[in-house]
Amino acid sequence: MTANGRPLRVAMIGHGFMGAAHSQAWRTAPRFFDLPRPIEMAVVTGRHEESLRASAERLGWAETDTDWRQVVERDDIDLVDIVAPGNAHAEIAIAALEAGKHVLCEKPLANTVAQAQAMAEAAGKALERGVLAMVGFTYRRVPAVTLARDLVRAGEIGEVRQTRAVYLQDWLGDENAPLTWRMDRAVAGSGALGDIGAHIVDAVQFVTGQQLTGVSGTTRTFVTERPVLETAVGLTGTAGDRRGPVTVDDAALFFGTLSGGGLATFEATRMAPGRKNALRFEISGTEGAVAFDLEDLNTLQFFRFADGRTAGFRRILVTEPDHPYAGAWWPPGHVLGYEHAFSHQVVDLVRALDTGEQPHPSFDEGLQVQRVLDAVERSAAADAGWTSVPDQRG
Amino acid sequence: MTANGRPLRVAMIGHGFMGAAHSQAWRTAPRFFDLPRPIEMAVVTGRHEESLRASAERLGWAETDTDWRQVVERDDIDLVDIVAPGNAHAEIAIAALEAGKHVLCEKPLANTVAQAQAMAEAAGKALERGVLAMVGFTYRRVPAVTLARDLVRAGEIGEVRQTRAVYLQDWLGDENAPLTWRMDRAVAGSGALGDIGAHIVDAVQFVTGQQLTGVSGTTRTFVTERPVLETAVGLTGTAGDRRGPVTVDDAALFFGTLSGGGLATFEATRMAPGRKNALRFEISGTEGAVAFDLEDLNTLQFFRFADGRTAGFRRILVTEPDHPYAGAWWPPGHVLGYEHAFSHQVVDLVRALDTGEQPHPSFDEGLQVQRVLDAVERSAAADAGWTSVPDQRG
Amino acid sequence: MTANGRPLRVAMIGHGFMGAAHSQAWRTAPRFFDLPRPIEMAVVTGRHEESLRASAERLGWAETDTDWRQVVERDDIDLVDIVAPGNAHAEIAIAALEAGKHVLCEKPLANTVAQAQAMAEAAGKALERGVLAMVGFTYRRVPAVTLARDLVRAGEIGEVRQTRAVYLQDWLGDENAPLTWRMDRAVAGSGALGDIGAHIVDAVQFVTGQQLTGVSGTTRTFVTERPVLETAVGLTGTAGDRRGPVTVDDAALFFGTLSGGGLATFEATRMAPGRKNALRFEISGTEGAVAFDLEDLNTLQFFRFADGRTAGFRRILVTEPDHPYAGAWWPPGHVLGYEHAFSHQVVDLVRALDTGEQPHPSFDEGLQVQRVLDAVERSAAADAGWTSVPDQRG
Amino acid sequence: MTANGRPLRVAMIGHGFMGAAHSQAWRTAPRFFDLPRPIEMAVVTGRHEESLRASAERLGWAETDTDWRQVVERDDIDLVDIVAPGNAHAEIAIAALEAGKHVLCEKPLANTVAQAQAMAEAAGKALERGVLAMVGFTYRRVPAVTLARDLVRAGEIGEVRQTRAVYLQDWLGDENAPLTWRMDRAVAGSGALGDIGAHIVDAVQFVTGQQLTGVSGTTRTFVTERPVLETAVGLTGTAGDRRGPVTVDDAALFFGTLSGGGLATFEATRMAPGRKNALRFEISGTEGAVAFDLEDLNTLQFFRFADGRTAGFRRILVTEPDHPYAGAWWPPGHVLGYEHAFSHQVVDLVRALDTGEQPHPSFDEGLQVQRVLDAVERSAAADAGWTSVPDQRG
Repeated sequence: MTANGRPLRVAMIGHGFMGAAHSQAWRTAPRFFDLPRPIEMAVVTGRHEESLRASAERLGWAETDTDWRQVVERDDIDLVDIVAPGNAHAEIAIAALEAGKHVLCEKPLANTVAQAQAMAEAAGKALERGVLAMVGFTYRRVPAVTLARDLVRAGEIGEVRQTRAVYLQDWLGDENAPLTWRMDRAVAGSGALGDIGAHIVDAVQFVTGQQLTGVSGTTRTFVTERPVLETAVGLTGTAGDRRGPVTVDDAALFFGTLSGGGLATFEATRMAPGRKNALRFEISGTEGAVAFDLEDLNTLQFFRFADGRTAGFRRILVTEPDHPYAGAWWPPGHVLGYEHAFSHQVVDLVRALDTGEQPHPSFDEGLQVQRVLDAVERSAAADAGWTSVPDQRG
Repeated sequence: MTANGRPLRVAMIGHGFMGAAHSQAWRTAPRFFDLPRPIEMAVVTGRHEESLRASAERLGWAETDTDWRQVVERDDIDLVDIVAPGNAHAEIAIAALEAGKHVLCEKPLANTVAQAQAMAEAAGKALERGVLAMVGFTYRRVPAVTLARDLVRAGEIGEVRQTRAVYLQDWLGDENAPLTWRMDRAVAGSGALGDIGAHIVDAVQFVTGQQLTGVSGTTRTFVTERPVLETAVGLTGTAGDRRGPVTVDDAALFFGTLSGGGLATFEATRMAPGRKNALRFEISGTEGAVAFDLEDLNTLQFFRFADGRTAGFRRILVTEPDHPYAGAWWPPGHVLGYEHAFSHQVVDLVRALDTGEQPHPSFDEGLQVQRVLDAVERSAAADAGWTSVPDQRG
Repeated sequence: MTANGRPLRVAMIGHGFMGAAHSQAWRTAPRFFDLPRPIEMAVVTGRHEESLRASAERLGWAETDTDWRQVVERDDIDLVDIVAPGNAHAEIAIAALEAGKHVLCEKPLANTVAQAQAMAEAAGKALERGVLAMVGFTYRRVPAVTLARDLVRAGEIGEVRQTRAVYLQDWLGDENAPLTWRMDRAVAGSGALGDIGAHIVDAVQFVTGQQLTGVSGTTRTFVTERPVLETAVGLTGTAGDRRGPVTVDDAALFFGTLSGGGLATFEATRMAPGRKNALRFEISGTEGAVAFDLEDLNTLQFFRFADGRTAGFRRILVTEPDHPYAGAWWPPGHVLGYEHAFSHQVVDLVRALDTGEQPHPSFDEGLQVQRVLDAVERSAAADAGWTSVPDQRG
Repeated sequence: MTANGRPLRVAMIGHGFMGAAHSQAWRTAPRFFDLPRPIEMAVVTGRHEESLRASAERLGWAETDTDWRQVVERDDIDLVDIVAPGNAHAEIAIAALEAGKHVLCEKPLANTVAQAQAMAEAAGKALERGVLAMVGFTYRRVPAVTLARDLVRAGEIGEVRQTRAVYLQDWLGDENAPLTWRMDRAVAGSGALGDIGAHIVDAVQFVTGQQLTGVSGTTRTFVTERPVLETAVGLTGTAGDRRGPVTVDDAALFFGTLSGGGLATFEATRMAPGRKNALRFEISGTEGAVAFDLEDLNTLQFFRFADGRTAGFRRILVTEPDHPYAGAWWPPGHVLGYEHAFSHQVVDLVRALDTGEQPHPSFDEGLQVQRVLDAVERSAAADAGWTSVPDQRG
């Protein structure tokens, strides 16, 4: 750790499952990467003092505060890391940016296009003052995904013709899995669509360097009532006898066109038994293809017609020193896990703060994903009819 | 071979790639399965006498004839096997059925719903006279696919919520791959949609026992002109300098609803580099899932929540004596290939002729697939708007 | 089938499981490959007239005879195909060769080195008279195995340093699986060692072009008594109450040195639950590697350091027109099965008969494998001490 | 973190690649698991002050010291964590134990049986005084490996008949890969045998609960001279023109008998192109099997004959709340990496310190592995002749 600069003092707003992942990243990144300045995990906020204190101790934050507004205005805070549910993102992020704090905001950027747009505008203004904002589509920084991007952008698969992406989980397969905030439209915005569909939209746009321009889609809620959660444990918990309405989708299907002219298909579902966290994509180009599966996150599949008689998907174990991020960790074949991408996100963000360059994904990029999700919902409401995704500044 | 009955005398109409597969099946089925009567490969027809004679000798047919009309009326012919391109199916099949011949017709049943409907009507009338008709969705009889059907129909995965199916090939990825009849709408009816999309529609409907009731879809031709074929070799051949228009789709994407209420997604494409013959489906139910890939055709993946702590997709090598069709062949683990399903099709058809029961898939089933494909094309022409699939008798 | 020469009249000695595979090959090869002369499946022999007749009818042989001696001397027979158990190979093959018949003999060549040596000598003398002999290590002609050989011999993986090969089955895992001739040393010679170990020894030597020069090994019989078989079905059958001794090994382990200086490891077992027919090998060279699994027989894995940053095992689907044997069958991705290699064996043998060149594997090669197996047994009997494999003419 | 006890003050001896892994574990374990007492990363030692200070800062140790002897005697140190090369283990561990410090010592326990024996004796005496020692066969605590152990010990695969284990790497495939201390017998003890062979011996013994009683083996150095390392980077670095001798093995092959009567095979090599860190094992029992691959470390394969017609290897993603260690981390399907097992090791060790129970693997277990490796080397020196592994107290 050759960081000599003034410490970067971080405040984290929220302390659920995502808070654990972010905390691990803030703590770990400087141990494996050279950062321009040290990091201080200064303060964590939450609504319930008791659980907040327990989280702070476990996650390693120096202070706690139950009033996030107070925190984002503290002079000694440099960066606000937002891991609260989506309905709170806009208010917090805008307040923080206006207070001159850099912001890292979990995805999806917001629950509505309007909120996302306000956030993007706030980020635009902040940028003029040297204050930076980034949205946490963390999977971009899984080494195999970054390598996929590098190969596609370098033309290794030619021009992109088709993409297929799914994000399959099965934790709601059981109709008695309890009702949590993730199934409440008011808090979560949408269900599989915003929670995991957002990831595959971002992944495909990131890897191809293109944007979705129009979509046709449908959504479905298979289980419309669930037992109300009484004690939260991880993503789920223990439920009681009372049942409440599920107000978000269990599954979302859509296809669309990419700005380069290609076709893209998407499926996001929490109802695919045996698939636990299967974010998968395959990008088919004129000269080859890449394919990825998050359940097997250290590998990238790569096919090139040019390999001729010995062509076949290459199973690249993305743990070599010359692979993205991988050299900082362990020797080849010593695989990384889910949380490492959060460390890479911290690394890139802290380095961007040092140079003053806009980190990616920007809030504009987060807004664009939100517009895609919104177009899917509008299409679904209109018998799957084709629905344009408005231009960024549309 | 304990067949004691009068020989079944078969005439095959057409002699291309599909003719080779059918011939191998007629020759091989009686060697591994007990059939109620022997098979005689009596006559094969085609337009060009010279190539027809060469095919007859290689494929093992006793006689040739360049006039199929004459053949389907011969008293000594019991069954007409149609492997000609789709635009010829209706005329031949109807003539054969009217002449009192049993008919096996390659998929898709026809190029249009109108043709398919006429064929289904002819089959209905023929059935009253004890004359049987079957359409060749051969992949139903890949042992792993039949096992998938058995498991799903037996309730092993609970109620079907979602299906996802793709059929990926890459032989048209090269924009200089030559133009063949398969890219000519007048002959082939459609492109990837009818050629391979038909297979995944049938596979999903077969395994689930449900029908698609509505769809939203889009199609695309990526390469709109190709060099004209001069010499055919297998599915492709050598091309000259002249280019001609591609009048069918290279890729088709659609999703829909199943009669049981579930959601289904489909992609058929010839533009997926590295995927050679990847007919894949996954059926997600309330209690488990099955998954299949034709490139790995001897295995079925099967997941059950009930396996609890040791739940995981089981990779079943479908070569055991108690697996469908498998016991007739080799010891466990001695895998089967593409062509074996054609033998299974012959076995089931010949046994059905013996009992007089309607074999499956019937022409009605073939018509229903055609209606789905037609609905996809109509949806694609209407900005992907939701399009009902008419009832069977609608 | 452009075969214009005089028909090749074949007699098959034996008609068990292997007889079915060979019959399918004799019948099928001319339908997909151009052979220099037609094939006639003239006569099959066996000891029990009734079952022999049933086999002949099912397998498609014109005549039967219960006296193989008479058959191998018939003037109208050109080639004798031996699929009887190993203890009968020497007598039949030598008689046939002396009678001027070409011989195809199933592996292992014989049950003892002495028998194999006598056979190789007979083959040597026969060759001088233009009479050819071949041993049936059929897996050499699985397209992926032949491709592996081509790549290794062309230097694509550099110099061979190590090989690892296993042949795992599980059909004897159940201690109540019945006792068959394959568990009787007098008939079978050895157990897993000769039955399946022979295949991996041949495969490694074939792919590398090298021979084993010394070995250290051990063998084991885990289940020493089994219920006696009463009715045979496939490789197994129905057993009664009586138990008899197993006199062959259930598993054999050995490692050795290759003539090029590399190291080789081997395991053959019928006691590996879940592995049905897993003949697997991996050849590690100075510049790359190839790997194969018979349960996934249409694919070859290929790794090259030279692929640099995108190096990874390539999963080659060996079904392309420019892959060994594959072009004669179906379009890319339309996979082959277990039996196809038997057709390839017929093709290469019939072509060799036409040119008069020694087909491979020769009886000398079969003898050499036998010497390796014998060295393993001698090592096993001597506390696994290092044991040389005598030179071919030693 | 509900740790209320007195902090556990840790000193780490050494600070190379293993030091980074151990440091990450000491820092991370308390963030995800409830430990009985907090951990303080008190002091790290090394020979070169400058690099030591850099390591301390990066790895997060409060103090440094270039004299390990002084450190192990400090009153304020509770536990000594030894990550120095194998030739230093005995002296440090014995000194620490005699000074009343608990010890965690990286594997292999020592470079010779004599050293290991002395260490085990010291550990035995220390235990009487309540001082605990543990050796770091960390892979035992990969969740999938622990689950394999649980299933096997619970009888889920019946009685163990055979095991097959390999540890394949390729980082020495290049003959110009530089010479490091890992290729120097005086420092490393042996090559692939002790470095990675030790892991598969321990893994098989751990999962089966049995010990190797005799072995037959061979070892090989393929590249006998290498360019001398000038600058270390990770496991390798930059080399100069000078070449030096490799005095350890590149590959080791052996098979042996287990105390329960089964057979075991092993291969450890650094010369397998395309295999980066492939620690693989398969345990075959009378009723089923388990299989594991470290390159795919979040999954366990499990086969049971009792699954009958739907039997197949189950691919268990070992990330469920009821899987070993997994519940403390992320939701299902959010995979773990290489380093997590080190955290699990810390957790189990710190909990053992709290209860005073002997943690596993003990130094006795480490000694036993050393005896196996020694028996392999003695067998290799005696033409692969069978060599007994002495009893623990032999």
